[in-house]
Amino acid sequence: MERDTESLRSRYVQVRTFSEQLCEPLETEDYVVQSMPDASPAKWHLAHTTWFFDQFILQELCGREPYSEPFNFLFNSYYNAAGDQYTRARRGMITRPTVEQVYDYRNAIDDELQNVIAKGDLSEEFVLRLEVGLNHEQQHQELLLTDLKHLMWQNPLRPAPYPQEHEPFAAERKQEPREMRRHAFDGGVYEIGYGGDGFSYDNESPRHEVLLQPFELARRPVTCGEYLQFIEDGGYERPDHWLSDGWATVQEQGWDGPLYWEKRDGQWHHYTLNGMRPVQPNEPVSHVSYYEADAFADWAGARLPSEQEWEVATQGQFIEGNFVESGNFHPRAVETDPEGFTQMFGDVWEWTRSSYGPYPGFEPFEGALGEYNGKFMCGQYVLRGGSCATSKTHIRETYRNFFYPHSRWQFSGIRLAW
Amino acid sequence: MERDTESLRSRYVQVRTFSEQLCEPLETEDYVVQSMPDASPAKWHLAHTTWFFDQFILQELCGREPYSEPFNFLFNSYYNAAGDQYTRARRGMITRPTVEQVYDYRNAIDDELQNVIAKGDLSEEFVLRLEVGLNHEQQHQELLLTDLKHLMWQNPLRPAPYPQEHEPFAAERKQEPREMRRHAFDGGVYEIGYGGDGFSYDNESPRHEVLLQPFELARRPVTCGEYLQFIEDGGYERPDHWLSDGWATVQEQGWDGPLYWEKRDGQWHHYTLNGMRPVQPNEPVSHVSYYEADAFADWAGARLPSEQEWEVATQGQFIEGNFVESGNFHPRAVETDPEGFTQMFGDVWEWTRSSYGPYPGFEPFEGALGEYNGKFMCGQYVLRGGSCATSKTHIRETYRNFFYPHSRWQFSGIRLAW
Amino acid sequence: MERDTESLRSRYVQVRTFSEQLCEPLETEDYVVQSMPDASPAKWHLAHTTWFFDQFILQELCGREPYSEPFNFLFNSYYNAAGDQYTRARRGMITRPTVEQVYDYRNAIDDELQNVIAKGDLSEEFVLRLEVGLNHEQQHQELLLTDLKHLMWQNPLRPAPYPQEHEPFAAERKQEPREMRRHAFDGGVYEIGYGGDGFSYDNESPRHEVLLQPFELARRPVTCGEYLQFIEDGGYERPDHWLSDGWATVQEQGWDGPLYWEKRDGQWHHYTLNGMRPVQPNEPVSHVSYYEADAFADWAGARLPSEQEWEVATQGQFIEGNFVESGNFHPRAVETDPEGFTQMFGDVWEWTRSSYGPYPGFEPFEGALGEYNGKFMCGQYVLRGGSCATSKTHIRETYRNFFYPHSRWQFSGIRLAW
Amino acid sequence: MERDTESLRSRYVQVRTFSEQLCEPLETEDYVVQSMPDASPAKWHLAHTTWFFDQFILQELCGREPYSEPFNFLFNSYYNAAGDQYTRARRGMITRPTVEQVYDYRNAIDDELQNVIAKGDLSEEFVLRLEVGLNHEQQHQELLLTDLKHLMWQNPLRPAPYPQEHEPFAAERKQEPREMRRHAFDGGVYEIGYGGDGFSYDNESPRHEVLLQPFELARRPVTCGEYLQFIEDGGYERPDHWLSDGWATVQEQGWDGPLYWEKRDGQWHHYTLNGMRPVQPNEPVSHVSYYEADAFADWAGARLPSEQEWEVATQGQFIEGNFVESGNFHPRAVETDPEGFTQMFGDVWEWTRSSYGPYPGFEPFEGALGEYNGKFMCGQYVLRGGSCATSKTHIRETYRNFFYPHSRWQFSGIRLAW
Repeated sequence: MERDTESLRSRYVQVRTFSEQLCEPLETEDYVVQSMPDASPAKWHLAHTTWFFDQFILQELCGREPYSEPFNFLFNSYYNAAGDQYTRARRGMITRPTVEQVYDYRNAIDDELQNVIAKGDLSEEFVLRLEVGLNHEQQHQELLLTDLKHLMWQNPLRPAPYPQEHEPFAAERKQEPREMRRHAFDGGVYEIGYGGDGFSYDNESPRHEVLLQPFELARRPVTCGEYLQFIEDGGYERPDHWLSDGWATVQEQGWDGPLYWEKRDGQWHHYTLNGMRPVQPNEPVSHVSYYEADAFADWAGARLPSEQEWEVATQGQFIEGNFVESGNFHPRAVETDPEGFTQMFGDVWEWTRSSYGPYPGFEPFEGALGEYNGKFMCGQYVLRGGSCATSKTHIRETYRNFFYPHSRWQFSGIRLAW
Repeated sequence: MERDTESLRSRYVQVRTFSEQLCEPLETEDYVVQSMPDASPAKWHLAHTTWFFDQFILQELCGREPYSEPFNFLFNSYYNAAGDQYTRARRGMITRPTVEQVYDYRNAIDDELQNVIAKGDLSEEFVLRLEVGLNHEQQHQELLLTDLKHLMWQNPLRPAPYPQEHEPFAAERKQEPREMRRHAFDGGVYEIGYGGDGFSYDNESPRHEVLLQPFELARRPVTCGEYLQFIEDGGYERPDHWLSDGWATVQEQGWDGPLYWEKRDGQWHHYTLNGMRPVQPNEPVSHVSYYEADAFADWAGARLPSEQEWEVATQGQFIEGNFVESGNFHPRAVETDPEGFTQMFGDVWEWTRSSYGPYPGFEPFEGALGEYNGKFMCGQYVLRGGSCATSKTHIRETYRNFFYPHSRWQFSGIRLAW
Repeated sequence: MERDTESLRSRYVQVRTFSEQLCEPLETEDYVVQSMPDASPAKWHLAHTTWFFDQFILQELCGREPYSEPFNFLFNSYYNAAGDQYTRARRGMITRPTVEQVYDYRNAIDDELQNVIAKGDLSEEFVLRLEVGLNHEQQHQELLLTDLKHLMWQNPLRPAPYPQEHEPFAAERKQEPREMRRHAFDGGVYEIGYGGDGFSYDNESPRHEVLLQPFELARRPVTCGEYLQFIEDGGYERPDHWLSDGWATVQEQGWDGPLYWEKRDGQWHHYTLNGMRPVQPNEPVSHVSYYEADAFADWAGARLPSEQEWEVATQGQFIEGNFVESGNFHPRAVETDPEGFTQMFGDVWEWTRSSYGPYPGFEPFEGALGEYNGKFMCGQYVLRGGSCATSKTHIRETYRNFFYPHSRWQFSGIRLAW
Repeated sequence: MERDTESLRSRYVQVRTFSEQLCEPLETEDYVVQSMPDASPAKWHLAHTTWFFDQFILQELCGREPYSEPFNFLFNSYYNAAGDQYTRARRGMITRPTVEQVYDYRNAIDDELQNVIAKGDLSEEFVLRLEVGLNHEQQHQELLLTDLKHLMWQNPLRPAPYPQEHEPFAAERKQEPREMRRHAFDGGVYEIGYGGDGFSYDNESPRHEVLLQPFELARRPVTCGEYLQFIEDGGYERPDHWLSDGWATVQEQGWDGPLYWEKRDGQWHHYTLNGMRPVQPNEPVSHVSYYEADAFADWAGARLPSEQEWEVATQGQFIEGNFVESGNFHPRAVETDPEGFTQMFGDVWEWTRSSYGPYPGFEPFEGALGEYNGKFMCGQYVLRGGSCATSKTHIRETYRNFFYPHSRWQFSGIRLAW
């Protein structure tokens, strides 16, 4: 694990700064509001990620008094071992501390933490918690973007927080996608899970053997053009291809397409962080739930891959793609004639059929950080590969993201398997 | 009705400016959030009251194009005849237009309207609508304060938007209230309702005769000290004195005292717009629902007055008291030994036992303004007299306020009758 | 008050027997189920009315032990002074005691009570409570029918508990209604409220003077034919004529006509206790809420009468009409050319614009019976005149029924005023 | 597959008769009511299982007209391919057809089907569907008992539908359980899933290889005595050992012990189908949710087994135990010093940590029966081994039952793994 203090400090500054860069185009008002219980205000994300360092390093490891007692309560998310928490669904009720005061909080903790790092002589636990804190902040950068997207879309004006003069990949998006090609894998015993010596989350370990049957995996994600065929074939009107819970959700929620899609004058548009845009055939479909991904796969005569299959297929691939660093915040078009697999990383998270659970021999982080992942191992499904809102320095082939099967406000898409 | 353009313009400026003065201590964040479906964000109040002039005078009477099409949708409250409306319960989701843009809107409409007024030659309808608009804005000034109070109280920090160095009436509040004295009225035929030639709402007319039985009315409001006796006598623990719907609400909501009351270290405190303060025996109880007012009255061997009784009792009284202009935003102490009635006006609205309905021969305003009052004449109860958040220039002895029997985020108190 | 024991006993037997006669066509299964929280199972009605005599006479006045401790809990409706109660909304969960056991309960209490009556020497309180108990049972006979109607209608088979070979008044129903004629009343001071020496509920007293403005009252109820015009004029599609709460209810509930109306092959039918039937133009409209009654009146350029107006108009009329004793359980056709008023009594309850509240000087019954009426005096509206499900021996010109403005499972109709 | 018509017919009669035997102690009222959306009335179970044969054999394979068109609608559960369905949550609203009419339905279908079987010359598909229908009926026999238990328990009288004069195993129950012993398994590749030529559900196939790590399994289920220690250690008062969704459920639902447990005079009792009984230390804990099973295991320093581990451990065991045929309807005491594993079958279903999903290569049944299992493969957890309410002729080592993690009205218990 990284112990060079200067590179540690520099990485710390880079990650922390990036959160604030993402917020530059926001108005003060945009920081405050919570559009649904699953989402949090940008202000809360900025404060909570700061509290994480405050609580788990400065208070717990360095023995410092809390920056603010109420902040410990307001900005703890779900760490029971670290004390009580303010109700999640009411995070948007808190107008004070103000945005400015939250930036003050960030600056104070950043100064203090850099001083501690600069002094050197850092314990293993310190470095681990710092790494967890930085990865944690990167996760919240993605949530900040997807929560912001959800908030802005609620506004009938559909304001675009990140407008773009010239949309990249515009031409490629409009092309019809080529036929979906597959890659075949042999059955047998494979190893999956994290086995390196860099940082990884507890839920990626231990590395272990799995036995897979032979399978095929699509070489590219499902496109909007293909998804439109599902819609036009009555996909949302008949229960045929749906899981029982999925169909119930379609009817309760009145779904007739992915989240953010709306028909205007007979043409499907979708809301993006760059504003409203026509849905283009050659871009990966995004903002679909597990239910929709599963129904589409069934309709297409396929299925979703297991997370083991997905991981095996990416082993040895370079981590390249369209990540948050591009500033595009929207999936690129699908490559027209790729060699091998494309877009396994970036663009859209890919739903797997795997329920999120512990690997055999799973050991949670120690202390309060043990609540980071383990207690969510029920009722959620694993997504893999990162998205256009994920940092390139955050994703791995062993990385396990997870959401409830009805959730669709993340950049979540579909890769087929057979 | 007022037709002198300069005094019209000056009154317009005064009322409009006062809304903004009330907002001076607010942070940008405080303007945006909606703490419950019944409340609205301060930003919305500022915009909606502006839209009222924009829609009903500039657009409808002066034939001007809308300042902004989306504003017509976002800031219309409930006037179906003026077009569709954004969902009330989601007013707090709208971060843009920003606060600054809403002030721009205010300024633009104010300039335009002052120009029109300055030109003179104003129709009767113009002057009526201007008067309605100004009275409407005064109502929203009160709502702005009560909604803000509700919002700030949600925050575990209990921030005080209007802190006070030295609390006025502090000494008087702590005194034990004197015995409650009554005034007796003969039965007979009285006249009530608005009969003057100034402004009044449609719901105050026509002036008409009513037949009253002999009755007695308390000469001062019920105090916190008296209300505490009700609490300590198990008022919230047994159904004995409650209306059936009231008791159901107590149990569902877990009420154990007026809104904003909380026990800290065995002592009742309440949240005020000046911050948390100990409940003092000699101040009028406030923030009680109709259910609580009725239960208290029953417990005290009394009843609530009808609105006719209340109005008859105030006829000929001067409109004096503790209004919003005092900047105190909290009820004064009860006068210790008053001559006649005290605090009929200001301090706290007084619940009456009268269901809000039309007077015999009621005629709503013409056009969309006909929706102002009439369509709410069901299921609500009349309150009389204004509060510490009401403008002194807004209240009348014939003025009818109305809220649902469970509502208690207004400054609503109790006057007993027998 | 009645003190002749034989006539008391005979009236007791007659009322009690009639409840059981109404249930003769029921299957055991029909007795058990509760179709909504407002309704109760027939079995519960039979048991609760029995418990009323058990509790308030045999236990409280005669000092007898409870027939069954659990029955005191299960069959108390809302009398807190008589002990705890089983949750109202879950009355349909109770399969035991069985129907047969409930009939055993009835028989046991009936035997015992007749013995007590036969002994004579009855206190004033005994006779009052017996009268209240019998009137109470008559109220529950009506509820039993309307609750049963609601239950049976839930069943997609629409079973008819009281099928009729030959529908009476079939020809009259199909006629187009004649023009609605009005009767004019002078303004002035009138007396209303119960002033006789027979039985009446506490809420009908004291008799007192009221001051009325001049008014006109329709001489017959509104018909289905007239109501259809309102529907066809877009009555349920636009908010124009609706109270604000009414329009919200229309949209939430998806109302497009009175309860029990459904369109089959382009023709409106309604469910009756005799089965499905085409809606006929000349029958009084029924199963409308206060909201619908008010909206219809507004659309028709009229208003609903106050309960004072209604009572003044009926003073001196004979109580004649279509009551539960006819066994028809459905309103008759409107008379084509009546002298004076028709159908003020029976057929359909008539909504008034009067919020249900206490008369000046109201004194509730003593003891637990004080909870009978008083605690419901909030949020409900008064209906007058009885219906086709009311007993002829139960109704009076001073009789005040009351329901929430959204309720419409009673036989509730409309009489216009101006 | 079985093709001998007489043994087919005899098995048909036996299974069908057993459903009716289970209902013998029921009162007519007990058949009708639905105590929660997840449960169904006994009448519905009797009718639905009959409809299953009516629809999938007589109508679809034999070309017979429906016995009753409305029955096709009322008694179809969730087979979209077989037509529309009455709302699940309102099955308890249907009082007609009566219980007697449902028994007539059963008799008519039974006669008809036995005639068809007697004729012989049965297609493979016919025999498969008959087998599915009989297994389906056995599943509903278990649901009928657990739904009935839930219904009866709602009644404050806690009536016992199956009272027992002398409780078997009474002495054994009261003994303190011995220490929990474990059995160790090697890691490696095992085969699981159904591979025989008798009947099995589609979700048990195909038989396939799995790779397991070494593990240990408890030789007996967790007892009430052990579970009490968890309760007394604050199990329901602190979030420490709970999944996040589990702890949220504990708080929302106010759980403080397994379903049906209630403390009376300081002593835990539980409701059984034989009536209320003191909780005894040596009986297997039952009626716990997945959340509770997982939290208990975490508290005990163990975990739940995977379904693969469970199946491997039972391979080759005889199917012996306490099943529905014993008529006891309650788990036996734990054996004090067992050889090998005990109570893997019968007594209580055992929660596994395996999310219910398709085996690799899963193929659903053909036609509408394809909806039997596949569409529920999301969000539920697998239970293994059957219970005291399962038929001995229904369970297999490969049998996969599944319920949502919050469900606990089944006889669901805990076996630990390490």
